[in-house]
Parts: sequence; C-alpha cells; structure tokens
Amino acid sequence: MEGSEEGKKKISEAVIRRLPRYYRYLSELLGNNVERISSKELSQSLGITASQVRQDLNQFGGFGQQGYGYNVEYLQKEIGRILGLNQMYSMIIIGAGNLGRAICNHQNFDRRGFHILALFDVNPKRTGGELNNIPVYDMGQLEEYMSKHRIDIAALCIPSSSAQEAAMRLCNCGIKGLWNFSSIELKVPGHVRVENVHLTESLMTLSYAIKESEK
Amino acid sequence: MEGSEEGKKKISEAVIRRLPRYYRYLSELLGNNVERISSKELSQSLGITASQVRQDLNQFGGFGQQGYGYNVEYLQKEIGRILGLNQMYSMIIIGAGNLGRAICNHQNFDRRGFHILALFDVNPKRTGGELNNIPVYDMGQLEEYMSKHRIDIAALCIPSSSAQEAAMRLCNCGIKGLWNFSSIELKVPGHVRVENVHLTESLMTLSYAIKESEK
Repeated sequence: MEGSEEGKKKISEAVIRRLPRYYRYLSELLGNNVERISSKELSQSLGITASQVRQDLNQFGGFGQQGYGYNVEYLQKEIGRILGLNQMYSMIIIGAGNLGRAICNHQNFDRRGFHILALFDVNPKRTGGELNNIPVYDMGQLEEYMSKHRIDIAALCIPSSSAQEAAMRLCNCGIKGLWNFSSIELKVPGHVRVENVHLTESLMTLSYAIKESEK
Repeated sequence: MEGSEEGKKKISEAVIRRLPRYYRYLSELLGNNVERISSKELSQSLGITASQVRQDLNQFGGFGQQGYGYNVEYLQKEIGRILGLNQMYSMIIIGAGNLGRAICNHQNFDRRGFHILALFDVNPKRTGGELNNIPVYDMGQLEEYMSKHRIDIAALCIPSSSAQEAAMRLCNCGIKGLWNFSSIELKVPGHVRVENVHLTESLMTLSYAIKESEK
C-alpha cells in the first residue's frame, strides 16, 4: 500500500496536524471496544466541525459509509499507516537534563513505534550511566555511535545556544528528523525534517487566549 | 490601547500561532540592534512567504511602510501587546517530575512575564522543599493555596490519568488558563482557556514528514 492513494496529492499541513489527534482519539475508542463512530461524534469529541472531519478523512479516499459512520479499527489503522506509525523509528535524545529525562520516561512513545536507544550529554555528571535502562553517552561519542547505529530521529533537549551545532553534527551523521525543543529556528539541509516544540510560543498563545477572553 | 483595533475582528488561529514566532524573531533582532526589516527578510528567516507576512501584520493595522519595511522595536512591542505580553501572568506547575522541573527551570518564561510561583505534587518525596527557590507543595494544599493567591495559569505536567481531575479542581479555584502537557483532551468550563502540548502528536507529525520525504 506504500505510495498509493495518499501519495498522489499534497496534504495540507493543517490536516496533517489534525491526523494525530484523530489517531489518538480513535485509539482511545478502540481501547474502550467502540466499533464505529459517526463524523458528528468524532467532531464533538475533538472540537472540530463534522464537515471538517468528513473533508479531512475524504482526502485519504474516505473511510466512512453513509448512515454507518466510520469503522474505528479500520480508520485508526489507516490513519496510523498514513502517519507512518506502521514503521519503527529509532530515536536518540540529545541532552539528559530534566526535559531529556522527561522525554526518556514518556510512556507513549515506545508503544507508538518510537524506540529510544540512547541519550547524550556534555555534562560528565550525567553520562556513563543509564536512564530507564537506556545508556547515557558523552556528546563526544555521538559520531562514533551514529556510525554504528541506524538512527532516524534525534530529540534536541538542549539550550538554544548549542542546538544549531548539535543539529549540524546530527545531519552530518545522516539523521532523518530532528525533534527540536530549543527555541531557535534550526538551519538544516533540505532533506532533514524538523518538528519544533516551541514552549515559549505555546505559552504566548495561551496568554493571548486569556487576554482575549477577558475583553 | 486595550480593546482597540485588533479587538474588533476575529483573528484566525493560524495567524495567532504565527505571532509568537514573529515576536521571538523580532526580539532576537532587537538583541542584535537591528532597527528595521523588510517583509522579505522576515519571511525568509521564518520560512513563510513575504505576502503571508504582509497579510498577517496587516490584520493588526499594518505596521510597515512602503520602501522602508518594519521598525523592529515598534513591531516587536505591538505584537507583544497583542499577545498580552505587556501583562504579568502568575503560574503554578502541577507535577514536580522531570517535565514539571524542566518547565520550572526554563529560562525564557520569566522574562516574558510568566512568573512561576509554586509547584504541586502528590509524591511526598518531592514536596516540602524548593526547586529554584520555588516551593513544592502537596497537591492536597492546592485549594488553600489558590484561595490566597491570584493564579492565572497552571501547567499540567502530570499523567493523563490524573489530568482531568486536577483540571477540574483548578477550574473550581478560578484558574484562567491551563497549559496541558498530558495527552488527553481536557473537558473544562467554556471561560477557561486550554493550550495543549501533545508531545506524542508532535512526534507523529515528524514521523509523517520523514515518511513523506522518503517516498
């Protein structure tokens, strides 16, 4: 099925950003043994309009049937496939501070196919040991490690001041995707994908919403 | 200036999500003593089109001048005002695990006007002391604390299984905004603003991008 239907057209970023939400919610339903769901129910639970739900899902060939709604298991599986969750991804974490440790301890990643294999840090107090049975290496060992392991994703849990340099080293080692928690906009070669989690920006969005609601 | 121009029309969520990026980049420029910038330069640095930049900023009355571009200091200040960053926000953190501690240690929040006043946790091993001079209280003390302090924002750095209950307790105490790091969709009264940082969804978006780039 790789490279079929959904490969032919460009899907908008807004839709792509909603797909993981559908996926998460459908997985919840599956866990509760729900077999089918209407676009109306889906939309109410996710806070988007029913027509938006239908429009989104139609982009991938439309999994729904008039009067029946969507088969939860099928839809979850298909969206998972579109998101690439039928594959395994190997991940390392750069930075073994609080944030790196929080990512390392996160329960959900492994069962979604994201396997954390190692952490790296510049601080000798943090390196040499293990976190959750995952080794913590010195940042100086990065290139050697990368030459021996096929790593897809690196999570950058380091200060902004060192994020760009670390990103370039990872790119030179053939990393495919960077999950960037630093507050800078990374400059990387075009084939490397970057997903930003800009916490300060998220907080500003919240302050805007609070300000607006007080008008 | 409160309730002036920008209060009159509804600004789309996509634009609002871009404003913190403008703000961050303009702050960087200010720090480097850059006085003015063209929409072209702005757009190149942020990876959006120049016409999108002009369109975005025009929504707030347009701060640019033909042939001159934008005055960095003025634009940064105005966007900050729109985002509500000319106010102070008091914040508490629910959960003093790795993620809560990472948020507590974050350098940027305080200088953007977000003051962290306390952490709360259910684990007695974590409570009673201080983190960065910020007290860590037992979750049982939440209501009493909230009755004595005016708190705007609570960051939920706790497992999904306890996030909804904590959210409701905070809503009952008059919280204005919830910064939700748990993976569930919170159900809260309409006047309470929620900003989600769904880490697993962010990671799924990255896996989608990697998969697409390998096609």
